[in-house]
Amino acid sequence: MHRFLYRGIVAAAIAEDLGSGDRTTDSIFLLGETGQAEIVAREEGVVAGLAVAQEVFAQIDTRINFNACLRDGDHLRPADRLALLQGPVSGILTGERVALNFLQRMSGIATATSRAVASVRGTKARIVDTRKTTPGLRVLEKYAVRTGGGENHRLNLSDMILIKDNHIRCAGTITEAVDRVRKRCGFTVKIEVEAGTLPDVQEALANAVDVIMLDNMTLEMLREAVKLINGRTLVEASGGITPDRIKEVAATGVDLLSLGYLTHSTRSLDLSLKVI
Amino acid sequence: MHRFLYRGIVAAAIAEDLGSGDRTTDSIFLLGETGQAEIVAREEGVVAGLAVAQEVFAQIDTRINFNACLRDGDHLRPADRLALLQGPVSGILTGERVALNFLQRMSGIATATSRAVASVRGTKARIVDTRKTTPGLRVLEKYAVRTGGGENHRLNLSDMILIKDNHIRCAGTITEAVDRVRKRCGFTVKIEVEAGTLPDVQEALANAVDVIMLDNMTLEMLREAVKLINGRTLVEASGGITPDRIKEVAATGVDLLSLGYLTHSTRSLDLSLKVI
Amino acid sequence: MHRFLYRGIVAAAIAEDLGSGDRTTDSIFLLGETGQAEIVAREEGVVAGLAVAQEVFAQIDTRINFNACLRDGDHLRPADRLALLQGPVSGILTGERVALNFLQRMSGIATATSRAVASVRGTKARIVDTRKTTPGLRVLEKYAVRTGGGENHRLNLSDMILIKDNHIRCAGTITEAVDRVRKRCGFTVKIEVEAGTLPDVQEALANAVDVIMLDNMTLEMLREAVKLINGRTLVEASGGITPDRIKEVAATGVDLLSLGYLTHSTRSLDLSLKVI
Amino acid sequence: MHRFLYRGIVAAAIAEDLGSGDRTTDSIFLLGETGQAEIVAREEGVVAGLAVAQEVFAQIDTRINFNACLRDGDHLRPADRLALLQGPVSGILTGERVALNFLQRMSGIATATSRAVASVRGTKARIVDTRKTTPGLRVLEKYAVRTGGGENHRLNLSDMILIKDNHIRCAGTITEAVDRVRKRCGFTVKIEVEAGTLPDVQEALANAVDVIMLDNMTLEMLREAVKLINGRTLVEASGGITPDRIKEVAATGVDLLSLGYLTHSTRSLDLSLKVI
Amino acid sequence: MHRFLYRGIVAAAIAEDLGSGDRTTDSIFLLGETGQAEIVAREEGVVAGLAVAQEVFAQIDTRINFNACLRDGDHLRPADRLALLQGPVSGILTGERVALNFLQRMSGIATATSRAVASVRGTKARIVDTRKTTPGLRVLEKYAVRTGGGENHRLNLSDMILIKDNHIRCAGTITEAVDRVRKRCGFTVKIEVEAGTLPDVQEALANAVDVIMLDNMTLEMLREAVKLINGRTLVEASGGITPDRIKEVAATGVDLLSLGYLTHSTRSLDLSLKVI
Amino acid sequence: MHRFLYRGIVAAAIAEDLGSGDRTTDSIFLLGETGQAEIVAREEGVVAGLAVAQEVFAQIDTRINFNACLRDGDHLRPADRLALLQGPVSGILTGERVALNFLQRMSGIATATSRAVASVRGTKARIVDTRKTTPGLRVLEKYAVRTGGGENHRLNLSDMILIKDNHIRCAGTITEAVDRVRKRCGFTVKIEVEAGTLPDVQEALANAVDVIMLDNMTLEMLREAVKLINGRTLVEASGGITPDRIKEVAATGVDLLSLGYLTHSTRSLDLSLKVI
Repeated sequence: MHRFLYRGIVAAAIAEDLGSGDRTTDSIFLLGETGQAEIVAREEGVVAGLAVAQEVFAQIDTRINFNACLRDGDHLRPADRLALLQGPVSGILTGERVALNFLQRMSGIATATSRAVASVRGTKARIVDTRKTTPGLRVLEKYAVRTGGGENHRLNLSDMILIKDNHIRCAGTITEAVDRVRKRCGFTVKIEVEAGTLPDVQEALANAVDVIMLDNMTLEMLREAVKLINGRTLVEASGGITPDRIKEVAATGVDLLSLGYLTHSTRSLDLSLKVI
Repeated sequence: MHRFLYRGIVAAAIAEDLGSGDRTTDSIFLLGETGQAEIVAREEGVVAGLAVAQEVFAQIDTRINFNACLRDGDHLRPADRLALLQGPVSGILTGERVALNFLQRMSGIATATSRAVASVRGTKARIVDTRKTTPGLRVLEKYAVRTGGGENHRLNLSDMILIKDNHIRCAGTITEAVDRVRKRCGFTVKIEVEAGTLPDVQEALANAVDVIMLDNMTLEMLREAVKLINGRTLVEASGGITPDRIKEVAATGVDLLSLGYLTHSTRSLDLSLKVI
Repeated sequence: MHRFLYRGIVAAAIAEDLGSGDRTTDSIFLLGETGQAEIVAREEGVVAGLAVAQEVFAQIDTRINFNACLRDGDHLRPADRLALLQGPVSGILTGERVALNFLQRMSGIATATSRAVASVRGTKARIVDTRKTTPGLRVLEKYAVRTGGGENHRLNLSDMILIKDNHIRCAGTITEAVDRVRKRCGFTVKIEVEAGTLPDVQEALANAVDVIMLDNMTLEMLREAVKLINGRTLVEASGGITPDRIKEVAATGVDLLSLGYLTHSTRSLDLSLKVI
Repeated sequence: MHRFLYRGIVAAAIAEDLGSGDRTTDSIFLLGETGQAEIVAREEGVVAGLAVAQEVFAQIDTRINFNACLRDGDHLRPADRLALLQGPVSGILTGERVALNFLQRMSGIATATSRAVASVRGTKARIVDTRKTTPGLRVLEKYAVRTGGGENHRLNLSDMILIKDNHIRCAGTITEAVDRVRKRCGFTVKIEVEAGTLPDVQEALANAVDVIMLDNMTLEMLREAVKLINGRTLVEASGGITPDRIKEVAATGVDLLSLGYLTHSTRSLDLSLKVI
Repeated sequence: MHRFLYRGIVAAAIAEDLGSGDRTTDSIFLLGETGQAEIVAREEGVVAGLAVAQEVFAQIDTRINFNACLRDGDHLRPADRLALLQGPVSGILTGERVALNFLQRMSGIATATSRAVASVRGTKARIVDTRKTTPGLRVLEKYAVRTGGGENHRLNLSDMILIKDNHIRCAGTITEAVDRVRKRCGFTVKIEVEAGTLPDVQEALANAVDVIMLDNMTLEMLREAVKLINGRTLVEASGGITPDRIKEVAATGVDLLSLGYLTHSTRSLDLSLKVI
Repeated sequence: MHRFLYRGIVAAAIAEDLGSGDRTTDSIFLLGETGQAEIVAREEGVVAGLAVAQEVFAQIDTRINFNACLRDGDHLRPADRLALLQGPVSGILTGERVALNFLQRMSGIATATSRAVASVRGTKARIVDTRKTTPGLRVLEKYAVRTGGGENHRLNLSDMILIKDNHIRCAGTITEAVDRVRKRCGFTVKIEVEAGTLPDVQEALANAVDVIMLDNMTLEMLREAVKLINGRTLVEASGGITPDRIKEVAATGVDLLSLGYLTHSTRSLDLSLKVI
């Protein structure tokens, strides 16, 4: 992930937390005291966002040295050290919360993704995310999903065509919707269509789309749809797939499981920063 | 919450999701078709963020009429309608995801807060949040906590003095840290000190601070600290308080329970938008 | 094209031209004089950017009424009126140059595109643009190409995979480059490979990419490549295709002609604004 | 040209082209491979914008070393090397297109200007630009004109007074327009008046303006106007002066030829970047 | 002054004062109470900035009606009403301080300027400002000077050439400095030279500059310089001219008095807002 | 004061003064001449803002070395050197005015504050500022007040509760206003109430607020109010306290004197930059 993509996000987060200045730290540290601190794990998981945490401290005080002890994607156990910081203590403490907020959230997403990926092992299914991300943090969250072993669904509304039920209802039929899209969308993008029923699947197939999203189907329906499609397009299962249902959905033979909860209901990973 | 505070956040979120344009919707809707849509609940909870959702649609197309059917803070049951939208369908569909991302997240926080508040009913304890919020969304998340019946801890680093263990370690003692702060922080702010042990509590009391934060204490220690403080300052219990522990922590007699999970491990409330 | 996408571009352009204020107009118009003006064509072409011109005046003075007399994509003849403006004359004159700068450039691109499209009539070839656009104006220029009847190549570096000679040289072979991409790029994007020789084309075919770009090939080579590919992928001819070569390149049977000159060497369409 | 003036323009251009990241390059380069690349000319011309190209790479990756082999204003022949780059190949490829887009456009303008300047050699006429620049890029394009040997007309609406036909029509007469301006514009700015006829010229002269713009006059009229003015003010010829007409217009004895085509109908200079 | 020029300044000022919201007002006004308020003068002076104050309230709440009772440039006496506001009281109180901060400062500058202008009545001298303005507020302060009857010196570093002692020292001589400037600055700008001695004045005259600035000269020297120049250029007296010295400096026959104190040592005019 | 807080302010100020470039300096310095300059005092005072001045030059040219010879808060005498600069002369001259504008204004505020603080020596009164600061520069001006030995009143509208006459009038009574605030404002903020009469003071006391502001009271009333309050809350005297009244107001026994003139009617300290 290019630093250009998150520099502004980090600056906004610091501004938000700094307000008119860190009154506590500014009152206590007057002499430019330097010191060391470490970021450590308090629970198991997968780390993501080290470069973002580093960027936080770099923006707060260029004299802070941030030495990552791990790489994004590494598995963590409690008490593992993620990074060692050296430099002015005041800057380290001023940046602590913002850096952790990024790192804990991104690691939480990578961890949840990694668990989902483990659940589908042995099937051909791959784990993908959705656009149900935190407003303003999409590039970071999509990156965290990749870090956890998942794959990204479209990044934004111009990244791929996804014809959903609301579009179909307005266009009349899947065929009409796909026709309109084909006339205008250009040769660079793939087309996915949401299907709620087997006839929908058949209509989508007839239109030779690239991906068919099976929305909120029962396991039985998923299996039938997969059989019907028979490898002619990619097949995505979507809609309310909770961690405990992943295995059985993957077993239906779909190619992709899109999981909104990875990003819309993230549990932060428990990390802390300690002056040492 | 003043619209001035979230206009820019909403604009950034739309830009992020729009990319270079909504290729699907732009291909399908060519004639300015107008229509209606509703936002409905799919589970129980407390709504928060209706004005933010409205702002999303207002920025996307001023011709979209957003009529809220409820008010922030209202309790929702499945199938309840939160809002009715009228206007160009393309704009409604282009804005759908961004509006829901805000509304689901904020309602999720309000819901979790409301449940925590219910858990402390009958005690004098109040529920407060932390600075463990999503980078970039703090004003919205703090607002959602208030909407759910909670109270805000400090908004940012200049909103109050909070002397934490890292500060104390560097200053040497609580007394020294408080002294330095008193000399520089001005008359407008309150001072809170983190205490990990009973001697810490005593030292904080001796310094006449406004609030004492009891960090990661056992129930037994919390009870003793409350007795020791005996109403001379506000008492905050903090650190890893999960939903199932709220009741027993509140029963120790503390004034405030600060709950990081309200914002760092939010579960989005399940809402959806349907063209009708 | 969504207004959200160009509002900021327009604001920056006005700021750039306004400097510290329009000294001429501000000195001459003191009484809020209102009047009428028209935008007229001085040469033949295709109009594009009316909404952008309208946005300029809307940002300068909300009281200016901009009534478009044509629609984007319409053909213009000299003396045709594009729009009629009514309102404060000072605002109309202050906005004149910025509005025309957008409208003339976009119409120039639409006109050039339209001529290129006319040149390929009777073949199956489609005209597409490139990323050789004016820094800061890409969405507008890509829109102008669509308005002129062309199709957009990828919008930016995350919109599609395009493996070019520099990538291939670094990866070693086309196959290696495609392999690396397949492992990481996700299911949503298509893959295009640049081929400079027939063996390149064969290697790209073997990797089942979506599009093959034939770069700077002679007509003879293009014909052979088309025969070799035989409809298994889309075929794009690229590299130095000037207006006079379009017809013969299209005749080789390629699907797409990408023309950098549409946007990197635009000739503005001659339009003017007259107070009437 | 101060770096402060284009840093933001460069950042916006990178953001525009990067989208959510360079999917191709990010997939292919995983190991931080470093290498070399050169920017070379494919046709004759005058180079302008090397510092802007350098800024592009500096913003993308500070480890890229950009060594200019020429200076802005130097004449290029095909195959001349403009710059040598060393550093991470991924960054070089990610920045390639944006850097070239700036450099090719600016060099195109410098080249066209330089040719126009050559055409007036032997006369006293100087070549100047107009405000018909690309929205958002004015400082760069005005700089390119200077680099090619031209002179800048006013930078923006507050840089000088230019009373045009629309202003005169609204004020009633040239004299009235100049009077209003004199009362309000301050002592720091010069005043130019557009004149379409010889009586206009006489009225402008009577008002002792600093520059008279002869708009769209025939060669015969230009000669008469020059004789009439007789060195009392600067004389600018303006309006539809194409390259083939420059010499004859300059021969009429005017001081300044303002050429809109330099910036509104720029042909990019053909340059390319090659990994070596 | 065009609204486009101060919209952003106003937005930044509101953001600065609003912080995370107006805690007092938001706590007290819950029901959307509407009411009236007036802005009244508490001392004599000249009003400037009514449109800016109006913009503050417009940005805070579009439902607030701001009715100016005076026009910029009008003279005020104590108790005069400047404006009447109607609408939501909470918005009026939230915006009060920011609106007054602008209005008091701008009126203070207009008042000081107006007094300086009165002091030179009967001489040919005109009052001009300097670039010693408040960072970020230059367009507003320059406007306030014009409103008070003064004239603007250059708006910024690209608005005119001003060769000062530091430039001359580095170039060697005035002549050398002017020569370099003439070669590069273009035909649109005037040239002013700072002169500290009579020989400087003579050298500047010999170079036919447009304005000569007499810096920190005694009255005697000013008179001699004016005699020497004898109307061949504009003459500006500059440097430490305090209100009590204006009359005598003007009497020396200079054309322009530039007064830094108008903007660098502004005294705000005493105004207040009252709910009525 | 954290550099993060003023970087953007400095960038905006440079942009404002630079316009499209420093025409004078750019014309005269072509060869990258380097040199030295010093910033010196021309009058007595207290210095504030050295880091901000340094930031100006750092943003203009990173090669300029800014060596502060004093520290913020130091007392200055005429001819004292504040800083020595070394590097490209063109950058030093381009930045001169902006750097001085910040430094002179901030030092002016620190000087005025320092004098006010001297006036209250021997009493228990402390000097505080107000929100009557220059729009856009609040953090800098509040910092200058601290540098001069003063204390900051609230930084913005979310920094503390201040119930003023307009709020009380709308709520009905002080008690009602305080009640509403207590219900909603959270435990982190202090509450101040404005009192215009002794009964107001009594009502405020009865509500146990943290600070009482005595607004525009006579010395007699101030003394009575202080006696009445008798140390139960902090007491602030406010409203039209001019330098000559400070001593007598302080003698009444109040804790805080808030002085609007420190920031709304600043006199810049006279400093200059000289190339040496």
